[in-house]
Amino acid sequence: MDHLIEKTLSRKTIFEGKIIDLHVDDVELPNGKMSKREIIKHPGAVAIIAITDEGKILMVRQYRKAMERVMVEIPAGKLEKGEEPIVTARRELEEETGYICETLKPLISFYTSPGFADELVHLYVAEKLSKKENAAPLDEDEFVDLLEVSLEEALGLLEEKQIYDAKTAYAVQYLQLQQVLGK
Amino acid sequence: MDHLIEKTLSRKTIFEGKIIDLHVDDVELPNGKMSKREIIKHPGAVAIIAITDEGKILMVRQYRKAMERVMVEIPAGKLEKGEEPIVTARRELEEETGYICETLKPLISFYTSPGFADELVHLYVAEKLSKKENAAPLDEDEFVDLLEVSLEEALGLLEEKQIYDAKTAYAVQYLQLQQVLGK
Repeated sequence: MDHLIEKTLSRKTIFEGKIIDLHVDDVELPNGKMSKREIIKHPGAVAIIAITDEGKILMVRQYRKAMERVMVEIPAGKLEKGEEPIVTARRELEEETGYICETLKPLISFYTSPGFADELVHLYVAEKLSKKENAAPLDEDEFVDLLEVSLEEALGLLEEKQIYDAKTAYAVQYLQLQQVLGK
Repeated sequence: MDHLIEKTLSRKTIFEGKIIDLHVDDVELPNGKMSKREIIKHPGAVAIIAITDEGKILMVRQYRKAMERVMVEIPAGKLEKGEEPIVTARRELEEETGYICETLKPLISFYTSPGFADELVHLYVAEKLSKKENAAPLDEDEFVDLLEVSLEEALGLLEEKQIYDAKTAYAVQYLQLQQVLGK
């Protein structure tokens, strides 16, 4: 694969933030020419497809500053330093929904924006849910509404572009596939 | 939804690049407290699920600097200024694969990383493909290998984490769903 690989010649760190860092790399292309790559470093995240005993999917409605709008998504959150993704998944499910789960299985992991960022999202399926008394609170800068929706309602939210992000679209399609397969 | 909305108090532009811009916004949270939001602005992108008459899916193998590795993805590319996404989709399909298509239908659009970026990806399904003589060339800093894979092979590439990004994972699951539905 050497005919594809870019060599890093130097890296300039533009920004080191609370959530993301930004670097600009000078690279040597496979043909020997030079170029620049704008790179966002992100700690990674988890997202949880949580299904209640009644077959409803847990979703959270929240304001997303990057789009300046409210969106409906599956519960998700970023990894704390050194945290195992499955631990993050349990924590975020409890904080964002007040639910805990008996079973939590990894489904798939994927990079969200490989063209410019290294954010890796780990998707889990949570079942056997129960409401927890005195659940862990949200981060102090997080505000969410909890929704419990059927697959049909989720498809309606997709159609209306209230659900409008990759991980939640993937989750809804996963549930469609499971339904068609009779699982 | 006023109980969720964050008000922008001020915006600091940290970086304006070739592909992304970075801003840090000071916001007032719904409870009146202050916080900061790190925001990446991106022009948006398209991705194409292109199916040959033999039922193979077109994929491109390319080096992704953010992850420092080679990945296999469906053809994709970012919008040029003022370009309609469907025009970008035709252009990127031709540039990255050498194929043109007779039918090109919008499937879904989604934000890839709503926690920190406004990148919106428009996904299309392309069919009735044909190889074009003297197809438009790749951008001068792009190097890709073209693959034509069956759904079974795509599932293998996912398992091996050669396919490892959200839009391509969504595309493979879409094709699985279509197969199960007998379409």
